[in-house]
Amino acid sequence: MKVALFGAGRIGKVHAASIKMDPRSELVAVTDVMAEVAEALAQEHGIAVRTPEEIFADASIDAILIASSTNTHSDLIEAGVKAGKAIFCEKPIDLSLERALQVRQIAASHDKPMMMGFNRRFDPNFAAVKAALDAGEVGKGEMLAVTSYDPAPPPVSYIKVSGGLYRDMMIHDFDMCSFLFGMPVSVMAHGSCLVDPEIGAAGDVDTAVVVLTYADGRIATIRNSRRAPYGYDQRVEVLGSEGTLAAENEVENTVVKSTTAGVQSAKPVYFFLERYMRAYAIEWSAFVDAVVAGAPVPASIQDGVNALALAEAANRSLAEGRPVAITSDLIGG
Amino acid sequence: MKVALFGAGRIGKVHAASIKMDPRSELVAVTDVMAEVAEALAQEHGIAVRTPEEIFADASIDAILIASSTNTHSDLIEAGVKAGKAIFCEKPIDLSLERALQVRQIAASHDKPMMMGFNRRFDPNFAAVKAALDAGEVGKGEMLAVTSYDPAPPPVSYIKVSGGLYRDMMIHDFDMCSFLFGMPVSVMAHGSCLVDPEIGAAGDVDTAVVVLTYADGRIATIRNSRRAPYGYDQRVEVLGSEGTLAAENEVENTVVKSTTAGVQSAKPVYFFLERYMRAYAIEWSAFVDAVVAGAPVPASIQDGVNALALAEAANRSLAEGRPVAITSDLIGG
Amino acid sequence: MKVALFGAGRIGKVHAASIKMDPRSELVAVTDVMAEVAEALAQEHGIAVRTPEEIFADASIDAILIASSTNTHSDLIEAGVKAGKAIFCEKPIDLSLERALQVRQIAASHDKPMMMGFNRRFDPNFAAVKAALDAGEVGKGEMLAVTSYDPAPPPVSYIKVSGGLYRDMMIHDFDMCSFLFGMPVSVMAHGSCLVDPEIGAAGDVDTAVVVLTYADGRIATIRNSRRAPYGYDQRVEVLGSEGTLAAENEVENTVVKSTTAGVQSAKPVYFFLERYMRAYAIEWSAFVDAVVAGAPVPASIQDGVNALALAEAANRSLAEGRPVAITSDLIGG
Amino acid sequence: MKVALFGAGRIGKVHAASIKMDPRSELVAVTDVMAEVAEALAQEHGIAVRTPEEIFADASIDAILIASSTNTHSDLIEAGVKAGKAIFCEKPIDLSLERALQVRQIAASHDKPMMMGFNRRFDPNFAAVKAALDAGEVGKGEMLAVTSYDPAPPPVSYIKVSGGLYRDMMIHDFDMCSFLFGMPVSVMAHGSCLVDPEIGAAGDVDTAVVVLTYADGRIATIRNSRRAPYGYDQRVEVLGSEGTLAAENEVENTVVKSTTAGVQSAKPVYFFLERYMRAYAIEWSAFVDAVVAGAPVPASIQDGVNALALAEAANRSLAEGRPVAITSDLIGG
Repeated sequence: MKVALFGAGRIGKVHAASIKMDPRSELVAVTDVMAEVAEALAQEHGIAVRTPEEIFADASIDAILIASSTNTHSDLIEAGVKAGKAIFCEKPIDLSLERALQVRQIAASHDKPMMMGFNRRFDPNFAAVKAALDAGEVGKGEMLAVTSYDPAPPPVSYIKVSGGLYRDMMIHDFDMCSFLFGMPVSVMAHGSCLVDPEIGAAGDVDTAVVVLTYADGRIATIRNSRRAPYGYDQRVEVLGSEGTLAAENEVENTVVKSTTAGVQSAKPVYFFLERYMRAYAIEWSAFVDAVVAGAPVPASIQDGVNALALAEAANRSLAEGRPVAITSDLIGG
Repeated sequence: MKVALFGAGRIGKVHAASIKMDPRSELVAVTDVMAEVAEALAQEHGIAVRTPEEIFADASIDAILIASSTNTHSDLIEAGVKAGKAIFCEKPIDLSLERALQVRQIAASHDKPMMMGFNRRFDPNFAAVKAALDAGEVGKGEMLAVTSYDPAPPPVSYIKVSGGLYRDMMIHDFDMCSFLFGMPVSVMAHGSCLVDPEIGAAGDVDTAVVVLTYADGRIATIRNSRRAPYGYDQRVEVLGSEGTLAAENEVENTVVKSTTAGVQSAKPVYFFLERYMRAYAIEWSAFVDAVVAGAPVPASIQDGVNALALAEAANRSLAEGRPVAITSDLIGG
Repeated sequence: MKVALFGAGRIGKVHAASIKMDPRSELVAVTDVMAEVAEALAQEHGIAVRTPEEIFADASIDAILIASSTNTHSDLIEAGVKAGKAIFCEKPIDLSLERALQVRQIAASHDKPMMMGFNRRFDPNFAAVKAALDAGEVGKGEMLAVTSYDPAPPPVSYIKVSGGLYRDMMIHDFDMCSFLFGMPVSVMAHGSCLVDPEIGAAGDVDTAVVVLTYADGRIATIRNSRRAPYGYDQRVEVLGSEGTLAAENEVENTVVKSTTAGVQSAKPVYFFLERYMRAYAIEWSAFVDAVVAGAPVPASIQDGVNALALAEAANRSLAEGRPVAITSDLIGG
Repeated sequence: MKVALFGAGRIGKVHAASIKMDPRSELVAVTDVMAEVAEALAQEHGIAVRTPEEIFADASIDAILIASSTNTHSDLIEAGVKAGKAIFCEKPIDLSLERALQVRQIAASHDKPMMMGFNRRFDPNFAAVKAALDAGEVGKGEMLAVTSYDPAPPPVSYIKVSGGLYRDMMIHDFDMCSFLFGMPVSVMAHGSCLVDPEIGAAGDVDTAVVVLTYADGRIATIRNSRRAPYGYDQRVEVLGSEGTLAAENEVENTVVKSTTAGVQSAKPVYFFLERYMRAYAIEWSAFVDAVVAGAPVPASIQDGVNALALAEAANRSLAEGRPVAITSDLIGG
């Protein structure tokens, strides 16, 4: 399976490594608006830099991996669909829910696998929670709590073009809730600016709580902060009718030091690449499974629409100070 | 310091034991509407059963401890104030916020210590969180999450007279939030009936999430369930600007068993008396400190009013499906 | 059941409290070579100071609790046997194994319960290990590791009269091994002086490892240090044919703090009274069970002889630099 | 840096992957007595199968990696020295200490880096213990305890040619003790056959405890079992004058499940490749550092001799039932 990579930045490099690790997939081309960045990755992998047009025109390329900036995603998906490629696209589809719904429409008739990069679904810890929950190991799910803190906020320049915390950061947690509990019927958002006043000045929040409620009475809570100085804090907890499942943080090492100062253990790993390195590799292999073996796509374009719809609803809820219902038109019928 | 006990039931017995453990206090009388119950406790402690009138009239009695049923609390506080006794009263003051505000008014001029029995403030784990937070060990508090699950629901007959989950169960968690973060400016309640349909039929919820927001942007989340089959799940977690403080459960023992079935450790202690046994003793000593040494009362009647006001707001929020503001008139100006 | 207490020092006070907690036992008399010490305890408990002679002569006294200094234990046991009292005696029987064997002989014909104070058998954690091991939850036991560190060494003046680390400190761990694995066939002792040169100058070690081997091939390891500055480190771990059981330390509280400095949790409780408070109460109730209900004595005088014999063998092993066999004459045939 | 690999079996494959991961090293040739095995690895890596003679004769090959069977190690090292190659060799040098000492002699004049594959030194957990200990974070080291259990015994056919538990399995733990505490002055070995009588029939033990003592009074304890059904149990604990450092197991995931059955977490990873995957990659990079950048070799041939000498002494100690002194002639002067 021959793959072309759109975007040779930080996340593009991660995916290039995953492509290399799966013996069934081969990276054959890369493109990036920044020529040097594309060239560097191409050299490292011994491949060619190509233009998007060349990539779409090359019939020997089976799949495209979209890891370029968010504002290019929807156009590239459309072009990929037209060119008949299997498509793997980083989240989100688009910052505009309306545009995402258009893309979903276009992709509906596509007969090749198309997958959204919700990497956390493939984290072995969260996947184990999902498996145990689905197996009924704690009975029927009742409450879900997702804790998701970044170690430090991104630059304010990034915040300004990010689409805001709910669309940029919490979108992963919305998808985690969908992964574990399905789609909710209402979204209530709270948020404030406690980490950096510049973020507030840019019209965004950096500290946020969202409550999702489900038709059958289940309730999910998401907590986000742009800053947890001790590391990347990523936890999930489910209360079921027969018990609790909790995925705790992965930590730097297993050493415990006991002195008069207390009992000290290692911090959570600091960076998302470190925490989700295994997840990225497993995610890619799942896409290859879909392309070469017809396995079901584990994170569909509808999942991408759903997460975006929840972010949209959260924005509206925060603005209006009341719960917002998730109606079927919001998620495309 | 001589003490008379109102109420010789389960919680009354706990307090009787605490009185005995502190060498500065002496239990001298007990009263209960159920004569045999009063008699049994009196015999065990070698003291006399007395009528409320006799107790209030006895000038040698310094303090009363109100552990009788909720509907008697406000009247007994009033009588205690009139009789010039120091007063320790189990939560809540009353199921009616209006009545609680009256009582607060009456008690305002009382020159003896008056303390509400918010036992969790004295739990060594939660107290350690409070101390570390106040000492700035994790910087300035930003988010608070309280998890509080009972092992199993009480009988529906109890539910019916309890005042509902927010007033009966979550009132402890409202006080925990006040203890750690002070009074919020708004309350948003979610709730559903997932544990027992009979509870729903009685007009109550058994699964609930409440979000409190604070004037300075801080956010607190409370999760309650009437059922966590593995034990009494009582945790608190604070995110501050410099780190996180988390009080985990107390467990039955420290034994870890590793077999092919997994690595197994002990469950949280199952029952609130077991979990909070130490807290009750420390709580009582704090009251004795106030009475005999003039120490400040660590859980005032205003704290009782505040918790009740938050429960009242939660009920209103749930009914109206929107956040409810905490105004100064709600908590007595 | 009426009890007289010999020794009103630190450990005597602990036992006095345990006697008070069990409603079936009543402390009626106390004696101590230091008159003021006896008087203080007597006043606190509202009882009389009596001479040993008065105690032995008083037919209304059912049991004696020997918590006086080690050099008085064997004589008091003998006198108690003659007076027909049930006897609870703190470890060890005597510093001399020969004398302990004599006492065992004398006590053999005693028709009242006689119990040695091996408190750790009653620690809920170690008791849970024992129960799980006996229930076959990890298959057949193969290796045992006991870690037992004091927070800080006692005064050298105490060390000099203590009988040495193996008889004074490790005796508890020898008994723990016997409790879990029975009597070994050989003892190999290692020891050195790393904590305080004064201890070495007094002819003792402060850091020690002993390996016990069993007839069927099982192996136990004991590690002792007189100093673990972070607290009282008391752990037990068993490898069985189907898994591992490990009793971890009890800690001061359950709070976990995560900052840039790391993830910090509470230290083990510092002091043996704190760690074993519950064990002392359970231990006493087990003795009362034996006296009033004929229950089997859970720590017999033979257990006392056995632990002393292992300490004796360890001393010999250390002196001679070779393993010492445990022969039947060493433990009284 | 061009590398030739001797041995294309399980461990050879691991090293081939490590070579590929470090961009500074390139695998150019492989050899194995089993032609198909060599061919398979060669194909996977797109390299040539070569004879040992061709490899030694090829001046463009900078380094050899010896991962063939133990009985070939010493001859290959000698040949590598003669050919002027940098040498990385899996443990042990040889089953014969005498032969190992010869090899050390031969290698002494070698001016290229030569490194022994003691992979555990590079495990991030054990390396963190070493770093903290050397930094004085727990004061001066006093006691060391190494726990090292395999999940299941190898086939008895392997046991028979393995050189026995001390040389085959505990050799890693001897090296861990040397890594952390340096060379001891005496070795006392205990061992028995509890896991599989066939192992005993083959003249070996499967359950073993060894105590090492050091000139300055420090004491180390190693516990080995060929069977811990719950996984690969690999822990290290150091007591220092100011505290304890403990490296705990790495586990399969971070999920905790709480039900009426208890609180269950994941098992240690089952297999050594999984546990030490990162260690192997770090180890290889350390060797590349030595070859290309002149960094010191972190596990020398003397370290290989030392571990073998301790195993030899353990065998003697077990046979003679007494401690065996580590004299300078045992480790080559």
